[in-house]
This record gives sequence, structure tokens and C-alpha cells, in this order.
Amino acid sequence: MNGTAAWPPVYDDEYLPAPDQRYWFPERETMPAGERDAFILARLRATVRWAWERSPFYREKWTRAGVHPDHLRRLEDLHRFPVVTKEELRAEQAAHPPAGRYVCIDPADVARVHGTSGTTGKPTVFLIGRDDWRRIANAHARIMWGMGLRPGDMIFIASFFSLYIGSWGALAGGERLRAACFPFGAGQPGQTLRAVRWLLETRPAAFYGTPSYALHLAEVAASERVDPRDFGLRVMFFSGEPGAGIPGTRRRIEEIFGAACLDSGSMAEMTPWMSNAECACRSGMHLWQDVVYCQVCDPRTFEPVRYGREGTPVYTHLERTSQPMIRLLSGDLTRWTDDPCECGRTYPRLPRGIYGRIDDMCIIRGANVYPSAIEDTLRTIDGFGGEFQVVISRERAMDELVVRAEYSAEVARRAATAPDLLQALRERMAARLTATLGIRPIVRCEPPGTLPRTEFKARRVLDNRALYETALAGADDPPRRPGRGAPGQA
Amino acid sequence: MNGTAAWPPVYDDEYLPAPDQRYWFPERETMPAGERDAFILARLRATVRWAWERSPFYREKWTRAGVHPDHLRRLEDLHRFPVVTKEELRAEQAAHPPAGRYVCIDPADVARVHGTSGTTGKPTVFLIGRDDWRRIANAHARIMWGMGLRPGDMIFIASFFSLYIGSWGALAGGERLRAACFPFGAGQPGQTLRAVRWLLETRPAAFYGTPSYALHLAEVAASERVDPRDFGLRVMFFSGEPGAGIPGTRRRIEEIFGAACLDSGSMAEMTPWMSNAECACRSGMHLWQDVVYCQVCDPRTFEPVRYGREGTPVYTHLERTSQPMIRLLSGDLTRWTDDPCECGRTYPRLPRGIYGRIDDMCIIRGANVYPSAIEDTLRTIDGFGGEFQVVISRERAMDELVVRAEYSAEVARRAATAPDLLQALRERMAARLTATLGIRPIVRCEPPGTLPRTEFKARRVLDNRALYETALAGADDPPRRPGRGAPGQA
Repeated sequence: MNGTAAWPPVYDDEYLPAPDQRYWFPERETMPAGERDAFILARLRATVRWAWERSPFYREKWTRAGVHPDHLRRLEDLHRFPVVTKEELRAEQAAHPPAGRYVCIDPADVARVHGTSGTTGKPTVFLIGRDDWRRIANAHARIMWGMGLRPGDMIFIASFFSLYIGSWGALAGGERLRAACFPFGAGQPGQTLRAVRWLLETRPAAFYGTPSYALHLAEVAASERVDPRDFGLRVMFFSGEPGAGIPGTRRRIEEIFGAACLDSGSMAEMTPWMSNAECACRSGMHLWQDVVYCQVCDPRTFEPVRYGREGTPVYTHLERTSQPMIRLLSGDLTRWTDDPCECGRTYPRLPRGIYGRIDDMCIIRGANVYPSAIEDTLRTIDGFGGEFQVVISRERAMDELVVRAEYSAEVARRAATAPDLLQALRERMAARLTATLGIRPIVRCEPPGTLPRTEFKARRVLDNRALYETALAGADDPPRRPGRGAPGQA
Repeated sequence: MNGTAAWPPVYDDEYLPAPDQRYWFPERETMPAGERDAFILARLRATVRWAWERSPFYREKWTRAGVHPDHLRRLEDLHRFPVVTKEELRAEQAAHPPAGRYVCIDPADVARVHGTSGTTGKPTVFLIGRDDWRRIANAHARIMWGMGLRPGDMIFIASFFSLYIGSWGALAGGERLRAACFPFGAGQPGQTLRAVRWLLETRPAAFYGTPSYALHLAEVAASERVDPRDFGLRVMFFSGEPGAGIPGTRRRIEEIFGAACLDSGSMAEMTPWMSNAECACRSGMHLWQDVVYCQVCDPRTFEPVRYGREGTPVYTHLERTSQPMIRLLSGDLTRWTDDPCECGRTYPRLPRGIYGRIDDMCIIRGANVYPSAIEDTLRTIDGFGGEFQVVISRERAMDELVVRAEYSAEVARRAATAPDLLQALRERMAARLTATLGIRPIVRCEPPGTLPRTEFKARRVLDNRALYETALAGADDPPRRPGRGAPGQA
């Protein structure tokens, strides 16, 4: 069992399993989950101690919260440590540029600089240490092995090589796996057409990118009268947006390319981001808990929910010394299970991948709309019954925002004798919402008890614009919104 | 002296010189050139033997030429091996796809797939072995050390990460050097503006890209009222096009950025392409002969010219097992010298870098024009005197092609009594050239002995369109054309 005893762990960069071996580290991947917990706890304690000793950011945050590394005696103690939000990281980097006070290594040991593109303001800087980069490569190679990739396979990496860490993580894993890496990238005019030609010419075993790019590639191939099946791909693995884990999209990609479609990815900050990844059985992303520890949590209390329940992933690094993330709140929405997977790995799984957001921000006609803002506005209005639902649709190119708001029992009683009352309430709601949101919604006043009661805010939004809904139609739950910023897949 | 005895050489990936040490491998870099020759010969013989045993391409080519690895007893024997041209490589790959029969390693050992973009037809595929990739990283790190880069320096890599091997070679060298690599890339809209922001934010020690991109970056910075000196760069190293070695362009870049500007680069096929590279003294690119052996050759006989003379570089790999290039003809034009450099390295140098092409193809109003085609056409015309000159200029946006052709002594004698004779000759030349070239030139008939006699075809072309001429104006030789496909630097 490689890398167990010491922390930070050191992996043998020359190790490779026999090609017919199913697991990279058989013992670590198949041990009873309870036994694994001891291993995880030891790494958690080491990581928390490492951060406490080196990061004023964490020390101050934990001191304010009244916690200390000594409090972490059992896994159950972890949730006493407050979650970290992305906004907090951005604020920390702005106050202590460029990378904030949570870089826990010597600047001379930084091997790679990456970051987010910062479309919503100041970008986030990632400084990754040399030893971390090797561990990331080892973790990704191990997980890619679980996807069915083997030494000598050619891996075509089709996403942009720049700040975005997705492409680089796939490349690092492929190199460590002893694959033939073809870092084709993206970004320049005509490059998808060139990709079609190079795929035909070189016939790689594997493809990495986003699901929407794979579908775009298929369209470009079709326009050239090329059948994507002629690329001869065996495995296509994805990250960067939901899609590969959604049955309808997965089926479509598998039919078009004739290759197995696998979902992966947590967050850029959590690199090795492949710690959420499907194995070759494709029964939902495994949480490779000995690499990054993930708890699916109640989005109000941030305590772990029971298996079978829905919540938001909260991630903690177990192998990172540079910028370790301890309880980073993803804001994603998922459901986890510990039902066994055919592959024999004993990790929990996300059987339907990541399918929504807890902060449920929507972009409607170019405006950022938070249902929480709708709720705040409605609550200032006398006669609002307390429950509401947001329905977004697209008629041709135009987004439509419908707010269904229940009126109070009091209004219901009075409306029986004052029929204009509901019309006046509707107009008041529409005017206030327009002022707040910057766009005009259609308001419908509904009798008390009409709307479904939901567990999370996200359930209050029905976004009928995206293709995800179609894809989810066969699933057992009602449709959800995709993750924030997920490109459409039309 | 690392990596001397065995072939293929194996380098210690953990080795680093002391930071104040000038040389990475002091002995190898400063030994008398004559002593180095023995070292080079041993590697040459091993490389040629390796290719003979594994590559039907080389075996057939050398058998046709009547040479055999046993004939390589002294360095002077090398030119008995015929040069390889890029056209030959393309034809070989077309006949034996995808990579031709000069991949001399097991396909399972391929680590990286790259290539040329193939703007002029079929692209060229590079398959680089795992051990070669490590050797490339070691060679580049060593040469970057000579540029003055040190562990912990942050290197901002500003060129596109895709097929183009330039960015990847700089990254591999930076990683091996233990630098903090920031592979920013290029290609997406708005990325140069983002580069300005990230450079200001992270203040890297070094920049890699093309000279024309550095000048473009400076323009974008100026439009944002950012002074590129505020990036705090210390070293800027370049490849991919001439420019960094041209005094005027170098001065301009150094003034704008306040950083040292260094030239490097041989050919993508020759990766480690940094085997041509300036040291911190910036007195012209050294030929790191123990990494890639370069002979500056007569472009007709392909025999090495004496130091001080002009010719075309012919390159031979000394450390590559995958796709080794043995006597690859560059077609570039340069002059070499063995005058000592201040740095103490005993490598020959290219004091003015690479400043032209021997095949002197010109692109005029979108048409590819070879002076050889002009010559062939003129030679079919009775009355042509045998010497000609091509002058290309640009008036506003329009290219102008002027062909100055001497008439024969016979025509000169007859023209004294038949004044229309020259006019008729001129019209005949113009008509035939228009038919051949696809564009209409202005023809001027000149008396015998008017035009300068030149050593190479390239001297017959004066291209007054490019900025290189302005940059070269201060130099001791008349202006030349830039390399083929070199982007303009406006």
C-alpha cells in the first residue's frame, strides 16, 4: 500500500501495476470503508496541522470559529471546522496578493502557476508545489487506470491549455500513466477541423475534453462527412461541466463516437480534481476518499447527510501541501450512495453525478438572478404566503421568467368578496421584482398550498431552457438546473 | 561530466548546479573545441548506428547513397551522409502513415505527440519517446541556465500550447530547471489583455514567446496605460521566428520591457530546439554542439563552410532515439564563427542569428514565387544575359515585383542599331514570367555587368517589405529577407 505511512505522501514514480490488474493500488481501493477511515483521519490530521502551522488564513479562521487541530480526533469532528467559500479565497487573495496566506510552501518550491479566468471579477491564483504536482500526476494516473486507460494508449487532450487546470491535470495523469499524450488543445480558429483530421490520422485510444466540445467536434466531423466512429476512440473522459454523467447526454456521446463516456471532476481548487471520477463500470463518479476527502453535506448546516440523501460536496485535500483546501464548499448539488459498485472499489459514489447548484443563480436575458433575491423581495410584500417557485423557459431565443407566488390565507379569505385584490397583489409583486431584478417577470398568484414544498432553494427553480432537463427526463427525480456556468449543449 | 559514457545518455533529473555557478556542466561547455569533437563523434556514431538498425527510411536512403555507418570514422566523414529535407520527411510520412519509418523506438515508449500545423498541405507528425522527453528537458534546462535563469524564477510562457513544440519545449526546460512555470498560452480572444493583467499581478522573472507577440503585448499594455517595465521581467527568450537576434528588434524589445532579450531556436524537428541559443552575454546564438551537432554548410555541396562564412545549418541529433534527424537541411541562412564568447563557452556562434533562407521563396500578393522559377523562365528566352535580380517592395498595401534582367552582349551590340529590340525583349520576358508566376512583374532590362554577382540564390532577392531590413540597416552586410513564414513585426 503505497504512500501510507508518511505525510506528505511520496509515491514511487516508476510504479505501474500489471496491465491486466484492475486496480492501481488494490488494497487502498477495495478495503472496507470503515478501515479506510483510519487512513483518512491520519491524513486529515496531518493536513490540518500543516495548514495551522503555515497559514495565517486558516489559523485566524479557525481561531475565530473556536477550533484547533487538536479537536480533530475522529472523522466526525471534521465538520466543526468551518467551510471555506470561493468568495473567501478571492477576498484573501485580494488582501494578500497574489495568492493569499494559504500557500503553505516555500515560494521557491512552486512548480506551476494556474488560475481561474476571472470572468466574474478578480481571478483566483493557484500556486502548486513541485511535490504536489507529482502527487497530482500519481493520483490522476491511478484514477485513469480505473477508467480503463493503460500505458501506451494515446490520449488526445482537446481542451484549452492555459489557466484552466483541467487540461493540465489530464496531461499530468497521462504522462505518469506512461500514455502517449497528445496535448492538442483548443482555442484557435479552425482548430476543431484540424482536430478531426488529426484524430483520423492518429486514431488515439482516448479523448479528454468537455461534453459540449465533444458534441461540437461531432458536428464539425459531420460537416466534413467524417464519422466520429472512425476516430477509433475507446474511452472518452470528461470534466469541466455536467453532462457526461447525465444518462441522455452520455448515451448520445457513446452512440456518436462508439466509445465509453466517463464523467469526472470536482473543482479546480481541489486539484487532483479527478478525485471525483467514474470507473470503467460507469455507475456514477466514485469519491476517491483517500485522495481528496469529500462529504456530501446539508447546505444549511454543512454536516454530512446520510448516504442516499442529497446535499452539497464539501472537499478536503489529503495530499496537498501548497494551498491545501480544508472544507471547501462546492455549492454543487448531488446525491451520494455507498451501494457497492461492480468494480469492487469501496468508495462512495455520486450515482447521477453533479446535477445542480445550491446557490441556484440563474442568468436570464443576461441578468444574474438569484431566487434568494426574489424571495427577499416577495417577503417585503403584504399578502405573500411564504412559498414561491421560479420557472424559466425559452421561447425561441427569448428567456421567460415566471414567478409563481402563493398568497396568504388572509388574502384568500378576503379575495372571496374582493375580486380585485389578487390583481392588485400581482401588480405590486411584478413592480417590486422588476425594480430588484432589472428584468420584468410574469407573476402568477397561486392559492396557499399549491406549490411543492422543497428541501433546498434549488428546488424552487425550474429551468426549462437547458438540454439537461431532456436528458434527465428518464430519471426518477424531477429535472434540475445544471451547475453554474455550464455551457449549453445545443 | 554528466551523460558522457553511455548512449543513449541518461541524465540525473535531480542534478542542479550551485546558483552562482555560470555553467550547468562546466567541463562540457568550456572544453577546447577539438576535445569536444571526440565526444561528438562517439555520439554521432551511436546515433547513426541506432538509426541504421531501426529505420528502413535511413537504411534505404544511405544504401542508395553508398554510405554505411562504418564509414563514419572521423567528423569529416559526416558530410558523406546525404542531407534529409523536410519534403522527404513529409513524403515518407505520407507513404508510411502516420509518422514514417524513422520512428526508432517501440510505439509503447512514445510519450508525446506533436506536429506541424501543415498550412502547406499534409502536417508532419512528431512522436517523441519518454526518455527523449527527459533528455530534452535536461538539455533545455541547461541552456536556460546559460541564459541566466535559475530555480525559483517564474517563467511566463506566452505562446500557444498545441501542436507547436516551442511552448512545450520551454515548459519542459523550465520544469527541469525547478522554475515556477506559468504556461499561460495564447489563442483565445482577449487573452493578451488577460496576459497584461496576470503579468502585472504575478511579476514573473522571465517571458517566453515570439518577438512579434512581445511587441503585440506591449501595444495592448500601452492601450491599457500599462508600462511593460512594470511587469518586472528580467529575461525574455524567444524562438519561432527571426527577430530577437536582429539588433534593432532586440534593442526595441529591451527598451520597452527593460529586460534582456535572448534569441534561440533551430527547427521543430530538431527538438531540443534550444541547441541554438544565446547565453546571457547575447553575442549571437551558441551552437550547443554536444546536444545537437550543427554544421553550417555550403547550400550547393552541403559541405561545412569555414568559420566566418555564410551557409545553411545542417543539424544532426546526438541524444534522440525517437525520430533522430541525421543531417536535416534547415534551408536557413546564417554565418558562423568560432570567435570566443565572453561567457567562456567554447561553442561556435551565429553572431547575427538566422537571417534568411537559401530557398528564397517569396509570397507576393498571395502567390508563392521562387526566384528559381524566374531564373528557369528567363533562361528559355533568347537574349537573356544570365544574371538577374528580384526586388520586392510594398507601396501602401500592394506588393510590387520587379525583375531586373541583364541582356546578353549580343543584344547589347544589336540594340545599338535596333532601338526597339530591348522593348521587345522586355515584353517577351514579362509575358513569359506572368504565365509562369501567376502575377505580373515589372521587368527592367539592364546592360551586361550591371547587377551584383551573388554567392547564393537568396542574394538575388531584395525584399523591401519587411521590417527586418530596417533592423538590419546598422549591420555590416546588406539587408536580407527574413526566414520563410516569419510573421511581420509591425
